[in-house]
Amino acid sequence: MLNKPLIAVPLGDPAGIGPEIVIKALQDAQIAAASRCLVVGDRGILEQAMTFPGMQPMTIRTVEHPREVADEPDTLYLMDLHNVDMQSFVLGQPSAMCGRAAYEYIARSIELAMAGTVDAVATTPINKVSLHMAGVPYIGHTEIFAALTGTEDPLTMFEVRGMRVFFLSRHVSLRRACDMVTKERIIDYVHRCKAALRQLGVTEGTMAIAGLNPHSGEGGLFGDEEVKNIVPAIAALQAEGCDVTGPVGADSVFHLALQGRYNSVLSLYHDQGHIATKTLDFERTISITGGMPILRTSVDHGTAMDIAGTGKASAVSMVEAIRLAVVYAPHFRKE
Amino acid sequence: MLNKPLIAVPLGDPAGIGPEIVIKALQDAQIAAASRCLVVGDRGILEQAMTFPGMQPMTIRTVEHPREVADEPDTLYLMDLHNVDMQSFVLGQPSAMCGRAAYEYIARSIELAMAGTVDAVATTPINKVSLHMAGVPYIGHTEIFAALTGTEDPLTMFEVRGMRVFFLSRHVSLRRACDMVTKERIIDYVHRCKAALRQLGVTEGTMAIAGLNPHSGEGGLFGDEEVKNIVPAIAALQAEGCDVTGPVGADSVFHLALQGRYNSVLSLYHDQGHIATKTLDFERTISITGGMPILRTSVDHGTAMDIAGTGKASAVSMVEAIRLAVVYAPHFRKE
Repeated sequence: MLNKPLIAVPLGDPAGIGPEIVIKALQDAQIAAASRCLVVGDRGILEQAMTFPGMQPMTIRTVEHPREVADEPDTLYLMDLHNVDMQSFVLGQPSAMCGRAAYEYIARSIELAMAGTVDAVATTPINKVSLHMAGVPYIGHTEIFAALTGTEDPLTMFEVRGMRVFFLSRHVSLRRACDMVTKERIIDYVHRCKAALRQLGVTEGTMAIAGLNPHSGEGGLFGDEEVKNIVPAIAALQAEGCDVTGPVGADSVFHLALQGRYNSVLSLYHDQGHIATKTLDFERTISITGGMPILRTSVDHGTAMDIAGTGKASAVSMVEAIRLAVVYAPHFRKE
Repeated sequence: MLNKPLIAVPLGDPAGIGPEIVIKALQDAQIAAASRCLVVGDRGILEQAMTFPGMQPMTIRTVEHPREVADEPDTLYLMDLHNVDMQSFVLGQPSAMCGRAAYEYIARSIELAMAGTVDAVATTPINKVSLHMAGVPYIGHTEIFAALTGTEDPLTMFEVRGMRVFFLSRHVSLRRACDMVTKERIIDYVHRCKAALRQLGVTEGTMAIAGLNPHSGEGGLFGDEEVKNIVPAIAALQAEGCDVTGPVGADSVFHLALQGRYNSVLSLYHDQGHIATKTLDFERTISITGGMPILRTSVDHGTAMDIAGTGKASAVSMVEAIRLAVVYAPHFRKE
């Protein structure tokens, strides 16, 4: 029984849908059967969330150390940071208190994972405004994880329905993303992707590199990045024994990956991979952060403060984030 | 019974999977129930295809005029152009004879539609090499339809699972596609998309215009096409009463369209719309050509000559192409 992976789940911004979806996810039969979860949060917030319309209550058991997390049914194990004042708490509103609380849940979760007392961290939504109001010096999850785990440049991977997608670039303009498609960058990035996959225990299979231009440029007919940079990068990688292929036209590479042809796809710009994953299954698109000494999975949606407290939030993403943490935890290694 | 739309189905390249998927599609219960089809092809080729492994034979009834197409079960109505010499025919090989034959099937189908004797044309794959060998002066379907219907600039729309997608540009490099995102071009193109939708009877609902940069550039933070061109174009269109919205981030616009939020999405480059549709459902992505005096739907896959004759070809796309022709035929108007 205690072989079930132990997943730390920071509660997210208390004023958003985090508490609601965490409770719902823990009540999911698949999650209950496959994992043990340790919620890092605040008892008052959880008790309130259990009163939202349609919510089922659970027994909250406060623990001081992850080793106390057992596997009793309908029980929510909580590391209570007791950092929300329920008198001044306002649901659905960003605030310094909630930003600070959300940060502390994450920081403690990371601490537990770094100490090896939990197997992974599955994160819930946080609010950038709340973080900023709290004076937290990081703009989001990735920056917090980078700082607190001592990781210089974490690597984001998306997974949806078994398809894994990496991103050669992210928050830059599409034109700048085109500039960043250089031979050297692709080679370096593929090495990093492969290392991130090894961390997850994925050592078999081929990584596909998407084309940048329509039909991968049709041999230079429209766009020369394939001819000048992508094909040479793939050739150099193959020459060193790296199992990569491509460029595969972006209109078929994700379809083929879904059929099991590739163990992952390197998309060459933010939207290339985002359109594929999010159009396919918006809610089940999970973010996994690679290159760190700990395993972290995350929902990729926001705090949805407009529906906080209504009981209407979907826990599908949260369930999937925990499920993938459970899948990868037994294989994970620091590298 | 005779109210069922009458769809002309040119057989495609006889050496590819066209004949097989046409027969299979006609045997689909949904197609048989909802449509009457007139295959424009060659009897010898169809008879041969009915002998491929696992194929069910049908009665082939040759007609001289579409008015002879009745609705008998297990009957394939054929306008026999008798243009393939079965002695020299080689399955799975491009040839001048097959290119010529495929062209003639399309040309006759267009002729029937232009004369109003069929309600639509649903096309099967043709082979560019065969067309070229035959000396046909067009590189593909769209060019043939443009020439033979007197359409200057046909408009391609994709439809998959009820989601309609237009393309501001297609076979140009991604950098060139960025250059083509101008205010004037968007305004003009939206007018053309709206006209194409009206042809299909789609007059209600909002068209969403996708963003070009990640998160639509976040107010100019990464990429300024939204601020400089897309937002002004949308404002101008709205000012003239055009029901458009956007820019909507490309990582959510297709998801929202699938939920029924929009009647269509204007994607700003080839792969933006192709990744969304083809990743979602490769086989059910159907191409519909707008701006012409006749209705045309099409599969969007190739002749797959490597599996011609094996009986393994999937007719899912062909069924969907005929199904959409049936859906739109009663509403179609020339404009």
